[in-house]
Amino acid sequence: MIIIMESCATDADVQHVVERIRELGFTAHLSKGVERTIIGIIGDERLFKKEQFSLLPRVENVIPILKPYKLTSRDFQSNDSIIKVNGVDIGGKNIVVIAGPCSVESEEQLMFTAEAVKASGAKLLRGGAYKPRTSPYAFQGLGENGLKLLLKVKERTGLGIVTEVMEANEVELVAEYADMLQVGARNMQNTNLLRAISKLQKPVLLKRNFSATLNEFLMSAEYILSGGNHQVILCERGIRTFVDYTRNTLDLNIIPAVKQLSHLPIIVDPSHGTGRHDLIIPMSRAAIAAGADGLIVEVHPNPPEAFSDGEQSLTPINFQQLMNEIKLVAQAVGRSI
Amino acid sequence: MIIIMESCATDADVQHVVERIRELGFTAHLSKGVERTIIGIIGDERLFKKEQFSLLPRVENVIPILKPYKLTSRDFQSNDSIIKVNGVDIGGKNIVVIAGPCSVESEEQLMFTAEAVKASGAKLLRGGAYKPRTSPYAFQGLGENGLKLLLKVKERTGLGIVTEVMEANEVELVAEYADMLQVGARNMQNTNLLRAISKLQKPVLLKRNFSATLNEFLMSAEYILSGGNHQVILCERGIRTFVDYTRNTLDLNIIPAVKQLSHLPIIVDPSHGTGRHDLIIPMSRAAIAAGADGLIVEVHPNPPEAFSDGEQSLTPINFQQLMNEIKLVAQAVGRSI
Amino acid sequence: MIIIMESCATDADVQHVVERIRELGFTAHLSKGVERTIIGIIGDERLFKKEQFSLLPRVENVIPILKPYKLTSRDFQSNDSIIKVNGVDIGGKNIVVIAGPCSVESEEQLMFTAEAVKASGAKLLRGGAYKPRTSPYAFQGLGENGLKLLLKVKERTGLGIVTEVMEANEVELVAEYADMLQVGARNMQNTNLLRAISKLQKPVLLKRNFSATLNEFLMSAEYILSGGNHQVILCERGIRTFVDYTRNTLDLNIIPAVKQLSHLPIIVDPSHGTGRHDLIIPMSRAAIAAGADGLIVEVHPNPPEAFSDGEQSLTPINFQQLMNEIKLVAQAVGRSI
Amino acid sequence: MIIIMESCATDADVQHVVERIRELGFTAHLSKGVERTIIGIIGDERLFKKEQFSLLPRVENVIPILKPYKLTSRDFQSNDSIIKVNGVDIGGKNIVVIAGPCSVESEEQLMFTAEAVKASGAKLLRGGAYKPRTSPYAFQGLGENGLKLLLKVKERTGLGIVTEVMEANEVELVAEYADMLQVGARNMQNTNLLRAISKLQKPVLLKRNFSATLNEFLMSAEYILSGGNHQVILCERGIRTFVDYTRNTLDLNIIPAVKQLSHLPIIVDPSHGTGRHDLIIPMSRAAIAAGADGLIVEVHPNPPEAFSDGEQSLTPINFQQLMNEIKLVAQAVGRSI
Repeated sequence: MIIIMESCATDADVQHVVERIRELGFTAHLSKGVERTIIGIIGDERLFKKEQFSLLPRVENVIPILKPYKLTSRDFQSNDSIIKVNGVDIGGKNIVVIAGPCSVESEEQLMFTAEAVKASGAKLLRGGAYKPRTSPYAFQGLGENGLKLLLKVKERTGLGIVTEVMEANEVELVAEYADMLQVGARNMQNTNLLRAISKLQKPVLLKRNFSATLNEFLMSAEYILSGGNHQVILCERGIRTFVDYTRNTLDLNIIPAVKQLSHLPIIVDPSHGTGRHDLIIPMSRAAIAAGADGLIVEVHPNPPEAFSDGEQSLTPINFQQLMNEIKLVAQAVGRSI
Repeated sequence: MIIIMESCATDADVQHVVERIRELGFTAHLSKGVERTIIGIIGDERLFKKEQFSLLPRVENVIPILKPYKLTSRDFQSNDSIIKVNGVDIGGKNIVVIAGPCSVESEEQLMFTAEAVKASGAKLLRGGAYKPRTSPYAFQGLGENGLKLLLKVKERTGLGIVTEVMEANEVELVAEYADMLQVGARNMQNTNLLRAISKLQKPVLLKRNFSATLNEFLMSAEYILSGGNHQVILCERGIRTFVDYTRNTLDLNIIPAVKQLSHLPIIVDPSHGTGRHDLIIPMSRAAIAAGADGLIVEVHPNPPEAFSDGEQSLTPINFQQLMNEIKLVAQAVGRSI
Repeated sequence: MIIIMESCATDADVQHVVERIRELGFTAHLSKGVERTIIGIIGDERLFKKEQFSLLPRVENVIPILKPYKLTSRDFQSNDSIIKVNGVDIGGKNIVVIAGPCSVESEEQLMFTAEAVKASGAKLLRGGAYKPRTSPYAFQGLGENGLKLLLKVKERTGLGIVTEVMEANEVELVAEYADMLQVGARNMQNTNLLRAISKLQKPVLLKRNFSATLNEFLMSAEYILSGGNHQVILCERGIRTFVDYTRNTLDLNIIPAVKQLSHLPIIVDPSHGTGRHDLIIPMSRAAIAAGADGLIVEVHPNPPEAFSDGEQSLTPINFQQLMNEIKLVAQAVGRSI
Repeated sequence: MIIIMESCATDADVQHVVERIRELGFTAHLSKGVERTIIGIIGDERLFKKEQFSLLPRVENVIPILKPYKLTSRDFQSNDSIIKVNGVDIGGKNIVVIAGPCSVESEEQLMFTAEAVKASGAKLLRGGAYKPRTSPYAFQGLGENGLKLLLKVKERTGLGIVTEVMEANEVELVAEYADMLQVGARNMQNTNLLRAISKLQKPVLLKRNFSATLNEFLMSAEYILSGGNHQVILCERGIRTFVDYTRNTLDLNIIPAVKQLSHLPIIVDPSHGTGRHDLIIPMSRAAIAAGADGLIVEVHPNPPEAFSDGEQSLTPINFQQLMNEIKLVAQAVGRSI
C-alpha cells in the first residue's frame, strides 16, 4: 500500500504515519519527491485497512497495490480452470451452450424445449423454479415442483440441470436436483448464500450484478472459493448504463479482461444482457469471438405466452439458427462446439 | 397499454392484434394516424404481459400507461404516510436523524457512540450486527451478540434500534431486537426477504440499490405493502455512475421525485451516498433542503480504527456540528429537528 | 403523439387539451380507459413541441410515437447505404479496416506505419493532424503540416486519408486533403461543424459521443444528411459507464440495434473503445462477429514513445495478427476482408 | 509517478525500467515489497507520459501521484476566487442568481422576463442567441439579432448578460455583447473554443459536460486559465446516468468536492440538471445548502409556448417563489442573496 502525503505535510506529519506503520508491525519505506512525500508499507496489505492511514493528518491518498482477491487470481493459479458439469467440461477448448426456458412452466413446455435445444446442440438445460421478480404481482416460479420437473426431463434427455437458488437455506434442497447452481445477478453479493454454496462440492454459475465492478465480481467468486468450493463459472449478463435500446448493456469487454486476471471460465447470457430476442444471435456470435467459454440462452416454444422473459427468448427454430452461426465463429477462433 | 404498429403494417396485421386483445377479454380502441396506426387496450393492463402483444407481427412498440405499483402510489393514498418507530414519527413535520456506528464492535464503542449521538439530538440508533461485506476476508459482524448489545444500549439510552436483516430466515430473530428492520441496498430485490418482512407489523427501512430505477425501488416497497406491512420508509444512499470522487453518487433528485409519486417517507444516507466523511455535512444540509424526512449517518468514536466504513464515519464532535447545521436548514424549509 | 391524462382529470381538463390540439390544426382522438383517459394527436408530431401539451393542467405524460430522425431511418431508405471512400466501399459485403497512428508525428513515423498497415491489408489510413486533448499541456497536433504529410504518404501508398476536423471554419481546409472527414466523439453535437460538413459531398466518419443515446447519435447524422451530404458512416467508440477496467465501455450492442433502425454503415474503434492495446484484438473479432462494417484501429511503430494514445496502439506486428484473426471471423459471418 | 511491477518481474525487468527512468533524466526510487517491487519516479511527472513506462515488459500498473491541473488547484491558490461580472461578485458571501429564458425569442419576451426576474432579485440575465440543438429541425436561435436584443434589455434593466458562444471564430463577436461568455456542456472539451476564450479578459461560465469526470472538468478550466484568462466560474448541470425520472442527474456532490480541490466558484443549473420544472425549486434549495455560489435558472413568461426547454422553465411567479425559498436557505448556511 502506498500513502501519498499532502504537499503541505511537515516532517512531523510524515513521522506520525511512519510510527503508525511500525506500531502495526510493518515496515515503512520513504520516498521524498519534488512535490510530494510518498510512504510505502512493506507487508501484506490485506492485514490492515485503508482508513487506518487515510484518516491520519495530512494524508492525501492511500493506494492499494495488491488485488483484493487471491484464490480467484491468475497469480494463484496460472492455467485455466476447467469445470465439469454433468460430464460436460466448461473452460476448455469446447464452447458449451446452456439453453432452456426462463421459468419452468409445465412438463410439456419443459420437455418440448429440452428436446429441441438438445437436438440443436445444447449441452445443459436451464430453467428457473425459484424466480426473483421485480413485481410482487408477477409469476414467482413453481418452486420444488419446478425442480422435480427438471429432474424428470433430465432423466429423459440426459441434459444436466442449471437452476437458480435464491437463499442460503434453500441451497441444500436445490443442490439435490441441480447439476450446477445459479447465483442470480441480484444475489451476487448475498454473502450468506455465497457462503452456503461454498461448503458444497458442486459447480456454481455466478452471474455478474448489473452494477458490479470487476473487483466486486471476482470478490464474490472469492467468497465461494475461499469456503472450499473451487467450481465457479462466471457469467456476464449486462450492466446498467444510460443506454435505452437494450434492457442492459452487454459488456463483452469483461471477457478478455477477466481472462487476464483470473483462471475461472466465463460465459455470456445474451438474453438478459440485451433483453431483446432480435439481438441475441449477433451478440452471441460476438461473445464467442471475444473469447467466451459458453453461452446461456433463453428458449421458449411460444415466447408471447411465456410466463416470464418472453421478449428475450428465442424460439427453437431461432435457437437452431443461433447454433449454426456460432459454430462457424467458434471454428474461426480455434474452438469447437 | 398502447400498441404502435409499424408503418408497413397491413389491415390484416392490425386486425390480428385486435382479435388477440378481444380473445383476452379486453376492448381494443383503434386510432389511424398519418404514419402509424395505434391500438389502445381498454382494461387493467396489470392483467396481461407486454410481450403478449410486442411479439405479434408488425408491432413496433408497446407502451404501458399505468404505473406498475399500486399501494405505494399517491393515487392510492394521497396524504403522506407517517411511520412511528419506538415512539418517533418519521414522515411528518419533524426531521429524524438516525445515527450510530456502521458495525456494532463492542459494548463500550456502542454505548459511547449512542450517548454521544443522543446528546446531539439523534432520535434512533443504527448499528450493524449482520454485515454484508464485499470481501470474505473482512469483518462480518457480531451476529446475535451484536443484537444483544444493541438492546442493552437501548435499555440505557431509550434510543430505538435500526439494524439490518440479511435473510428471510433471520427476520424473526432480528425483529425481536429491532425497532426498525433495515433492508440493505444489496437486498433491495431479495424477494424472499421482502416477503418475510411483509408479514410483520414492524417498520422497515428500505435502502435503494445502487442501480435501481425509481420504478424498481417502489416495486420493492410494493412487495412489503402488498404482503400487509405498510410501515415502509425509503432511503436514498447513492447510485453507481461514472463519477470517481465519491464512492457512489448521492442522488437527491429522487426526493422530490418520490414525493410526487408516493406517500411513503424518504430519508437519506450521506455516509454511504458519498463514502467521504468530509462530504457528509454539506450533503446532509442539501438533503434536508431538498425535502428529505430524515438522515441516517454513521458515527464512530475513532474512525481510523473502525471495523468497517471508517472513511465515511463522523466523529461525535463532527456529528454535533452536523446537527447544528441541519437544524438551521430545517427551519429554513419550514421543518424542525 | 399520445397524451395521458391524470386519473383525477375532469371532462373539462380533457376538453381543454382537445381544443388546444384543434387550435394547432390537428385532430384529437379520444380513448377513455378504466383508469386513464388518453388523447391521440393525428398529424405530423414533428410540427409541434411536447411541452405544448405536457404543461397543460392534469396532463400526466406525453409520449412521442415517431422517431425524431427521418433521412437516417430505414423507413426512409430500406436498403443499406454503401459509401465509397477513395475507391473503397464501406457498408457492403467487404469489411474495411482503417489503420494508422493516433497523431501524425513525422514523415518517417507516418510512412513506416502506412506501409506496414497497407501490407497487412488496411484499406485506408488514419492519422490526426488536429488533436482534441484533455490537457492543455499535451501535444495538440501538427495542424496543416500534418495534413501535408498525410497527402505525401497517400501519394506514395495510395491509401485514402481519414482525418479529424474540429471546427466549422477548418472544414474547407481539411477537406482539401482528406478522403473522409472524421467528426470526433467530443464534437458529435457540434452543430456548426455538422452543418458545415453537410454542405460538402465528401464521406464523413461520425463518432459516437461517450454519452450519446442512439437517438442523439442518429440525430447528429440527420444534421449532415438533412444538409445534403448523405455519405455518413457511423462509428462506435465506447461509452462512459461505471466500469474501470476499460477506458470506455465498447458497446457492441449498438451495431445490430443501428442496423435495424438505419441504413447507414457502422464501424468500430476498439482502440478508443477499450483504451487497452491488449483488448483490441479480441474486441475487434467481436465487433466483426456482431455485424460491424469495418474497424478503425490505432497503430504505431513504437507505442511507448507515441505522442498520444500509446496505451491503445498496436505495433505493426500485432496489427498483422489482428488482420489474420478477423479475416477468419469475417468469413464465419459471410463477409470478406 | 509510481510503477508497480508484476509479481513475476525479474531483477533484469526492474533494472530495465530504472534505466529508462534515468535516460529520461529522472531519479528512480526502488521499494521491494513481499509480493511486488515498486519504483517511484522522482521529478515532475507532467514531463513524461504514463505509457513510456506502462508498456515496458512486466510493468503491471503505473499510478500518477500529482493532479493533472495546476492553476486551477487550491495548491496553486488557496483562497477562493471571486469573479466580478458587470459589477456583481460571484464566489463571495453573496449568492448570485442568473435567470432568463432558454432562447431569446423576441424583444417583448426578453424584456418582460428580464424585468420580472430583476424584480425578484436576479442579478444577471441569461438568454441564448446561438443554440446547440439535438435536432436539425428545431429552432437554432436568433444569432446576432438575439445578441442585440440582449444588449437593448441590458440598457434598460442594467442586468449583465450571460450568453453562450459555440465556436472559436464567434468568440470576438459574442464577447462584444456579453458580460459573461457561457461555454455549453457539449463544448466543454472544444479546445479551439477554450483557447480562443483564454485570450480574453472576460468572465466565463464553464458548464460541465454530462459525462465529465472532475479531472476533465478542471482540465477544461485549466485550458482557459493557462491561456491567461483567470475569470472562470464552473457550473454543474447534471450528468448522464441510468436514471429516468430526470433528464440528467444533477450531481450536487461535486460542489463540496470542487471546493476542496479548486479555488474557482461553482454554480448550479437546476433547469438542465433535472429537466423538470417541478424539481427546480427543491433542487435549488439543495444546491445552496450544499455550498453552491449561485444558480442559473430558466424562466419564461409562457413555458408551454417557449421555443425551447419549456418543460424546465419556471414562470415569473414560480421564480419569485424560488427566490423566497432560497433566501431562507442561504441565511441558514451563513450566506445572503
